[in-house]
Amino acid sequence: MADLRGFMAPQTPSGASAIVPDMPWYYSGTLLTAEYRTDPENVAALLPEGVELAEEDPGAVALIWADWQSCSTGGAELLDPQRSQYLETFAVVRCRYEGVTYTRCVAIWVTKDFAIGRGWFQGYPKKLGSMAVTRVFSVGRASPRLAPGAKLGASLAAYDHRLASLVVTLREPSETNGFVNGHPMLHSRWMPSITPGAGNSLDQLITMSTSDADIGETWTGDFALELHDSPWDELASILPVREHIAAYYREVGVTFTGGSLVADRSDPSV
Amino acid sequence: MADLRGFMAPQTPSGASAIVPDMPWYYSGTLLTAEYRTDPENVAALLPEGVELAEEDPGAVALIWADWQSCSTGGAELLDPQRSQYLETFAVVRCRYEGVTYTRCVAIWVTKDFAIGRGWFQGYPKKLGSMAVTRVFSVGRASPRLAPGAKLGASLAAYDHRLASLVVTLREPSETNGFVNGHPMLHSRWMPSITPGAGNSLDQLITMSTSDADIGETWTGDFALELHDSPWDELASILPVREHIAAYYREVGVTFTGGSLVADRSDPSV
Amino acid sequence: MADLRGFMAPQTPSGASAIVPDMPWYYSGTLLTAEYRTDPENVAALLPEGVELAEEDPGAVALIWADWQSCSTGGAELLDPQRSQYLETFAVVRCRYEGVTYTRCVAIWVTKDFAIGRGWFQGYPKKLGSMAVTRVFSVGRASPRLAPGAKLGASLAAYDHRLASLVVTLREPSETNGFVNGHPMLHSRWMPSITPGAGNSLDQLITMSTSDADIGETWTGDFALELHDSPWDELASILPVREHIAAYYREVGVTFTGGSLVADRSDPSV
Amino acid sequence: MADLRGFMAPQTPSGASAIVPDMPWYYSGTLLTAEYRTDPENVAALLPEGVELAEEDPGAVALIWADWQSCSTGGAELLDPQRSQYLETFAVVRCRYEGVTYTRCVAIWVTKDFAIGRGWFQGYPKKLGSMAVTRVFSVGRASPRLAPGAKLGASLAAYDHRLASLVVTLREPSETNGFVNGHPMLHSRWMPSITPGAGNSLDQLITMSTSDADIGETWTGDFALELHDSPWDELASILPVREHIAAYYREVGVTFTGGSLVADRSDPSV
Repeated sequence: MADLRGFMAPQTPSGASAIVPDMPWYYSGTLLTAEYRTDPENVAALLPEGVELAEEDPGAVALIWADWQSCSTGGAELLDPQRSQYLETFAVVRCRYEGVTYTRCVAIWVTKDFAIGRGWFQGYPKKLGSMAVTRVFSVGRASPRLAPGAKLGASLAAYDHRLASLVVTLREPSETNGFVNGHPMLHSRWMPSITPGAGNSLDQLITMSTSDADIGETWTGDFALELHDSPWDELASILPVREHIAAYYREVGVTFTGGSLVADRSDPSV
Repeated sequence: MADLRGFMAPQTPSGASAIVPDMPWYYSGTLLTAEYRTDPENVAALLPEGVELAEEDPGAVALIWADWQSCSTGGAELLDPQRSQYLETFAVVRCRYEGVTYTRCVAIWVTKDFAIGRGWFQGYPKKLGSMAVTRVFSVGRASPRLAPGAKLGASLAAYDHRLASLVVTLREPSETNGFVNGHPMLHSRWMPSITPGAGNSLDQLITMSTSDADIGETWTGDFALELHDSPWDELASILPVREHIAAYYREVGVTFTGGSLVADRSDPSV
Repeated sequence: MADLRGFMAPQTPSGASAIVPDMPWYYSGTLLTAEYRTDPENVAALLPEGVELAEEDPGAVALIWADWQSCSTGGAELLDPQRSQYLETFAVVRCRYEGVTYTRCVAIWVTKDFAIGRGWFQGYPKKLGSMAVTRVFSVGRASPRLAPGAKLGASLAAYDHRLASLVVTLREPSETNGFVNGHPMLHSRWMPSITPGAGNSLDQLITMSTSDADIGETWTGDFALELHDSPWDELASILPVREHIAAYYREVGVTFTGGSLVADRSDPSV
Repeated sequence: MADLRGFMAPQTPSGASAIVPDMPWYYSGTLLTAEYRTDPENVAALLPEGVELAEEDPGAVALIWADWQSCSTGGAELLDPQRSQYLETFAVVRCRYEGVTYTRCVAIWVTKDFAIGRGWFQGYPKKLGSMAVTRVFSVGRASPRLAPGAKLGASLAAYDHRLASLVVTLREPSETNGFVNGHPMLHSRWMPSITPGAGNSLDQLITMSTSDADIGETWTGDFALELHDSPWDELASILPVREHIAAYYREVGVTFTGGSLVADRSDPSV
C-alpha cells in the first residue's frame, strides 16, 4: 500500500510535489504598513458570528505590504529562489473573542501558489495579486535611504485592476511597527460540503502566531493611500480610510510552527 | 451581527470578494489529451490507503491540457475575461474503491487563483503553472485545421522549470475522448490540523462529475510527449511513459453543480 | 570570421536566438474593434511633422484587441505555443501624407517580446501590457455564440493599471470590419543617437500592409468603453471618446512580408 | 502642428507615454556574476565582422544576474515600483576593435519593457525572460548573510524553458567584481530595412559606459552553473563552460548618460 507524503496536496511517495513543505517555515523580509481608522461598523461587518469588535480603537486597520523570502528546514528553496520569494498585501483588523483580543486578516493577495497553500492552512483568505514595493538599497541614486523624508511606494492589483497605491514618507526611527497587527491571529478555516447547500465539512476558529521575531530597522512616517474596488475584489468599499494613524517600514524575520484550535463548528458528516 | 457572504473566502457583506462564486460553474473550452501506460505500481504508489488499482488496464494515464473559459450564473465573468479564462494541465488515473471504478486526478497545475479555489473544494491537488496549447482557428496560415496530419503543441512549466512538452498529430475524427478520464472522480479533501502533528481536521473521500456535456469536434491521433521533474514538481519520475495509447482533441462544454461524500476520516477535534 | 545570423538581435551562428525570425510572418486570430470619434485636434496632436489629418472623418479612432497565433515559415512556433500566441491592443487613426490616406498606429501594447521586436521593425510603438478578450466557443454555457445580442468583453492593463475595459454587443453580420484600420500603415521608425542630444541616427517614414487576408465570420454591434490614463500610459486623455461609431468582431488570417520606405530623415553620422 | 515628446516611442504631447524616459537613468541593485572560460572560438563566433577576440584570456565569459531598481530624474518611478524594478541576466565577453579592448553583451533577458527599450537604444540584444536571484536580508532565517559559506541561487527561463541555474558559495570579500564586464561596451545598433533583403537602414557600432559607480559590499566565491538551450534561446551551445574562474556578489549603483558612435555602416536610403 502506498506511503504518501506531503504536508499538503499533492502527495507522492517522495513528498517533493507538495504545494507546501513541512513546518517550520522561515521568513525574512520587509513590511510596509499603513495604519488608519475606518468606521467601526465596517470592521464589524467583516467579523464572523460570535466575534466582536476590539474594545479599544475598534475601527483601526493595517494595510501591509510584505516582501518575503521564505524557506523550510534546510533552505533548499533559497537556492532556486522562484520557490522562495513572494510578495503579499493584506488588511488586518483587531477583534475580540471570549474576552481575548486578536488580530484578524480580512483580505490578502499573494504572488505565489505556495503562499496560497500555507495561507489556507493558516486561515488567511488568500487570493493571487500582483504587487511591488520600493526597495531600500545602500548604494546608487535609484533608491531611498532609511532617513527622514525618504519615500517608498507600493501597489496592489488583481485581475488587472489596481486596488491600492501607497506612498510612505519616513520621518524617524520607531520602536514599534504599529499596533493593529500585534496580537495573535484569530482565523477561520472552513470548507463547504461537496454536497450543495449541506453546510461546512470544516469550520474552525484557530489562533496562531509567529515566533523568533528578528527585528531590523524600523521607521515610522506619514502616508498617502488610494483604495479601489473591482468587480472581483473589495477594498475601498469595505475598509474606507477615515483617519490616518501612521506608516511603518520594518525589516523582520519570523518563524511559523503552527497554532491551536479555538472553536470548532465542523460537520464532517457532510 | 455581520451577515457574511461568499462561497469560499474571503467573505464580505456583498460576497463579491470570494475567490470562487456560487455553483453552478459553467465551462466551455478544448481538451488536448495524451493517453499512455505507465507501470501499474507507479499508479498504485499515488493512491491513498484503501483505494485500489482499476481492474482493467491499471497503468493507464491521461495527461490533459484544458483551455477553459468559465463563468457562474449570469456570466459576469465573461465580460471581464481575465476572471473567466484559464488553462490547466492535469494527470488522471483510474482506481477502485468499494467495488466502484473511479477516475482520480493525481497532479494538476492551473493559471488562475479562482481555479485553485474551485479545485481545492473539489479535491483537485491544484498548484499554479504556466501553460500554452495550440489553438485551432478557421482562417489564416498560423493555425492547424481539424484535418488528418494537423499538429497541435502544448507545454507546462512551474517555477520556471519545463515539466511537459506535447505534440499531437491528428489522424481522424473520434467518437470518444479516451477512457481514463471517463469515470466519476474520486478525490481527497483534507486539511492538516493547525496543531503540528495532530492529524487531519478534514479528511474526506468525495466523488463528483460534471453534467450537461456539450460535445463538439473530437479527433484522435498520435503524440510525442516529454516529461520532466523539477525540485518542486514530479511528473517524469512518478508517471513515466511506457507505452502510448492515443491522443485526443475535443471541444467541450460542461456544468459543475457539486458532488457527494464517499467516506470521512476527519477529526474535527484537532 | 563569424557568420552571424538572425533577422533581429541577438545574432548567433545558427540564428535560432533572434527575437524575431525571418519574414514572412503568418497570423491567425480574431479582432475585437471599437470605432469612435474623438476631437480631430486630438488626432492631429499625435501626428508627426508633415503628416496631416485625413480629409474625411478626421477624428475617427479604432481601438482594437487582437488575439493572435502567429508563426514563420515551417510553423515551428505552433508546436511550442508559448512562442506563437500573444494578444495586442492598439489604437489607430487615419492620416494623410503627400496626398495619400494612411492608417497610423499611435499606441499599442502586446504580451510577448517577439511581438515587440516585430513591431519595432514595423514602426509600431509597442510596449508590454496585459490583455484578455472573450473567446467564442461553439459548445457549453461559458461562451457567447456569434448571434444577435452576444456580448464579448476585453481589457487592457499596463504596470498594473487598468487602461481600457470594453464590452461589445453583437447585432448582425457585417461585410466590413470598420474603416479606420483599412489603409496601408504610415509608421515612423526612429532611433535617437547614442550621443545625448545629437538627433536621430534613424528616422524614417515607412509604409506597409498585410497580404493574403483570409476573412472568417465578421459581425458588427454596439459597445461600452472605459478608458483610463496611468502615470506611464495615456489613452483617456489623448483619445477621449466623443461619439460611438460601431463595434466589430472578425476572424482573420494575414501574412506580413515587409513594406517600403516613404521618407528618410536619418542622420547616420550621429 | 504637433509637438511630440518622448525619448522613445510612443510619442505624445506630454511625453508621458514613452517606453523610456529621458536620460540620465539611475540604477541601484545587486549583481551576481559567474565568470568562466569557454573555447575562444565560441566567443569569436559571436563577434560581428571586424571585431576581434581580446588579446588576453579571449575565452572568458561573465554570466550576470542583475536585480535592479531604476529611475530617471525626479525619481517618480520609485513611487510606483512596478515601473522601477526589474531583473536581467546577461552574458558578456571581451573583444577588440581598432586596438581597443571592449566588453560586449552577446545575450540578455530582462523582465520589463522599459528595460527592453533602453537596451535596444544601448545596443543590448534584449529579450524577455523570467528570473530570480536570492536576496540578502539582515534578519531572519530565510536569507544568507554576507559571510563565508553563504549560498545564493539564481535562475533564468524564457518561453517556459529553464536556460540557466546558478548557485554561488561566497568565500571572502573582494576588491573586484571580476574582469570580463570591466571595459567600455562595444555594441551594435541595427535595424533591417522595411524592404525585404535591402540591407540595414541602421547599422552602427557604438560604445558606452556607466558613470558614478557607487560600490557597496563585494564578495567572491565559487559556483555551480547549469546552462541549457531551448528552440528559441541558446546558452549551453554557444557559451559552454570549460573552466570556472570565480563568482562575485556586488551591491552597486550607476548612472547612464549616453555613449558615442564608433563606426557606422547604415544605409538610410533603404
